[in-house]
Amino acid sequence: MLSQTFKDRLIQIVGKENVDDSKAGRLVYSYDATPQFQSMPDIIASPRNTKEVADIVKLCSECKVPIVPRGSGTNLCAGTCPTEGGLVLLFKHMNQIIEIDEENLTITVQPGIITLDMIHAVEEKGLFYPPDPSSMKISSIGGNINENSGGLRGLKYGVTRDYVLALEIVLPNGDIIRTGGKLAKDVAGYDLTRLFVGSEGTLGIITEATLKLIPMPETKKTMLALFQDLEAAARSVSKIIANKIIPTTLEFLDQPTLIAVEDFAKIGLPTNVKAVLLIEQDGSPEVVNRDMDKMAAICLEEDAEAVQVANSEEEADALRTARRVALSALARLKPTTILEDATVPRSEIAKMVRAINEIAEKYRVNISTFGHAGDGNLHPTCLTDVRNKEEIERVEQAFAEIFEKAIELGGTITGEHGVGVMKAPYLEWKLGKEGIAAMKAIKASFDPLNIMNPGKVFAKDSRKRVVVTR
Amino acid sequence: MLSQTFKDRLIQIVGKENVDDSKAGRLVYSYDATPQFQSMPDIIASPRNTKEVADIVKLCSECKVPIVPRGSGTNLCAGTCPTEGGLVLLFKHMNQIIEIDEENLTITVQPGIITLDMIHAVEEKGLFYPPDPSSMKISSIGGNINENSGGLRGLKYGVTRDYVLALEIVLPNGDIIRTGGKLAKDVAGYDLTRLFVGSEGTLGIITEATLKLIPMPETKKTMLALFQDLEAAARSVSKIIANKIIPTTLEFLDQPTLIAVEDFAKIGLPTNVKAVLLIEQDGSPEVVNRDMDKMAAICLEEDAEAVQVANSEEEADALRTARRVALSALARLKPTTILEDATVPRSEIAKMVRAINEIAEKYRVNISTFGHAGDGNLHPTCLTDVRNKEEIERVEQAFAEIFEKAIELGGTITGEHGVGVMKAPYLEWKLGKEGIAAMKAIKASFDPLNIMNPGKVFAKDSRKRVVVTR
Repeated sequence: MLSQTFKDRLIQIVGKENVDDSKAGRLVYSYDATPQFQSMPDIIASPRNTKEVADIVKLCSECKVPIVPRGSGTNLCAGTCPTEGGLVLLFKHMNQIIEIDEENLTITVQPGIITLDMIHAVEEKGLFYPPDPSSMKISSIGGNINENSGGLRGLKYGVTRDYVLALEIVLPNGDIIRTGGKLAKDVAGYDLTRLFVGSEGTLGIITEATLKLIPMPETKKTMLALFQDLEAAARSVSKIIANKIIPTTLEFLDQPTLIAVEDFAKIGLPTNVKAVLLIEQDGSPEVVNRDMDKMAAICLEEDAEAVQVANSEEEADALRTARRVALSALARLKPTTILEDATVPRSEIAKMVRAINEIAEKYRVNISTFGHAGDGNLHPTCLTDVRNKEEIERVEQAFAEIFEKAIELGGTITGEHGVGVMKAPYLEWKLGKEGIAAMKAIKASFDPLNIMNPGKVFAKDSRKRVVVTR
Repeated sequence: MLSQTFKDRLIQIVGKENVDDSKAGRLVYSYDATPQFQSMPDIIASPRNTKEVADIVKLCSECKVPIVPRGSGTNLCAGTCPTEGGLVLLFKHMNQIIEIDEENLTITVQPGIITLDMIHAVEEKGLFYPPDPSSMKISSIGGNINENSGGLRGLKYGVTRDYVLALEIVLPNGDIIRTGGKLAKDVAGYDLTRLFVGSEGTLGIITEATLKLIPMPETKKTMLALFQDLEAAARSVSKIIANKIIPTTLEFLDQPTLIAVEDFAKIGLPTNVKAVLLIEQDGSPEVVNRDMDKMAAICLEEDAEAVQVANSEEEADALRTARRVALSALARLKPTTILEDATVPRSEIAKMVRAINEIAEKYRVNISTFGHAGDGNLHPTCLTDVRNKEEIERVEQAFAEIFEKAIELGGTITGEHGVGVMKAPYLEWKLGKEGIAAMKAIKASFDPLNIMNPGKVFAKDSRKRVVVTR
């Protein structure tokens, strides 16, 4: 319980209308897009500017109240679930585009802006901001930066990290710092900018960001390749890259996902094939046409049943939508959907897809797989029901084994969703005790009171490694 | 003075032939490519593997002996000058390519490999490692990573940071950790990989690195644009980017640099113009031809006197060489050459070039300027003589004012050379006290005994800001 004094002081900082400790208000921010995690915050505050954020941080620091900065709560790692109560910080007033700089190809924004709104503003200038997390219609840029969001264009264009040039940050002690600049090159000290990207709100509060833009590619083409064999699809992915083509998008959907998507979106997807690859290339027309032809030929060589090139932007958009709605479509089928993002080097995708299917069978759980095949970032998705405790236990065992397999193949426990609460027990599998210790030392050096999004990234207890019998 | 016991234990770790504390041996490693900095180390050690590095680190930690990891010493910030004595760590035995992975487009190397040797090996496979610091014939990859080296292709392709996927690191406590992987996406905890890139050997010792490769562009073209007006050259740079063309290279050389280079290399450069831009584009032939035509037209619109396209790879190579030898050519003219790399947003290049010339005049010092105009990373280069104390004082005042101007224009004190000892007193100008405090906290959390390259990045005293009269 927070004291009345704390509440009064908070109201002094942001105004009465920007503080909410009603039960209904707190309930709204007690969970995010991650199933199975809920915890009530004590109070919600919506600061109007950086100074107010700094004052809130100082107040929370003085009173040792946890702060959970929250964008739109679309993350899938319970990263914004207020597991230790405290104050949820919203950015609904800090959602402006400060500047689009067409000479330096940058945009400067406040953290609360919705990703897609920002992308539209950028595209109006003929410019391009490539990171496109599937949640971009709802997600905020502040959330994207804190989670280092990926998306469908990561293979060619990288992830959020690759576009963050400068940050304004409120540190846990209330200091306001600025990192980086509108600069392609800056080596003045440690790279605090990238340290904060993906730090999940555990090191400080990002209050402004300058992002890199690039010229909009001239043209884009989209196609589907249909396979009766999962491994043929995976082989095609490897072969495309080995042929020195880097497409914008190289997405994989398995048959259960295809059926769910078609049932949901009715876009005429083939549902009688075992897997499809959604392939896109952008750039100059000559390069796009040549690359698309080459990729189609490679898929056919690798036993694709057919290759369908979208004939219009509408058709292309329908195909992209098919991929983007995969999660929503699957989520309709069962009360609980658990989406994971074990990631492997792209050469290991065939092995990983095979392992996921074997593990699902072993634990008798229902797992569909789709994801960013081109960058090895798969989303095995389990349809289940949290009320079935016995099944949920098998689901957790299955995912633990999936994480173990990903690491065994040189991969990671999370490619783009973050660690949060959900993956924290597995982090040691990837980093070892020594790596965790190094990260904890960084956390302690920034936030000795542990008030910044406590309980995230670092687990109280690590899971034991599953003994995989080979 | 190190004890005999320390020396004996070091010999036990790496063998007698890999330890040198002779005066001649120590003298060799008492300085690097940075003028005006020299300091004797106590001993030199050349470990043969990661285990030996870890054992050395543990020994130095126990005995509180500073460790200065050193590649080829080509840095320009006195980053490898052993200012506090101690042990210089060489990587001459750890210079192998461990693997080129053509399926995942990665190369894994030991830190001691020479950058250009690695690039040649990569190019033999039809692949491309873009970062190309001017020192690449001599520099090592370990040094490049520790300094986050840039180069001539930074505008289009980014810097070393953008290509480091995974590291093996020996921490100051002797722990060996592995960060990242052959993964385009990995958000398992804080981004230790990028924190170590550019950390100048102050946080740990990098013993292995996996770097991202990309397909080799199909073709490349090179041209020179000649200007009688510095600002017309700068305007052309801005206009090219504003026209949504991102060339591979967009380099600037002023007249004094041109004269020095031509005198040195005799390649037929025009010396009767005030400035040239060296422009390159790579990619598919159609795109390259179109972009080159557009860029030539823009330069001519902006009053370029002439545009000369290289007609052969030999001609192109001569032009690139002109830029690459700029420092060596200038260095011949006077006993001491001080090369700086104040960096500004590219929209501010014209203002920055003008300010550099005004400052040079004000302090009556001889400054030539060349550099990476496309990314705002300029190299004002002062020809002087360290023996002339009075002049050196004016040179230092001039550079302080140049740094101040760069920051005023939204830039930074160093774009690609690093902070080291040389720029440490100015770091606070860029980061503020609060930013420095955050970085020092990171340093203390990794290296509480301050044995890792001590005296670098953080200065004992900060310089006062120059009062610029406007």
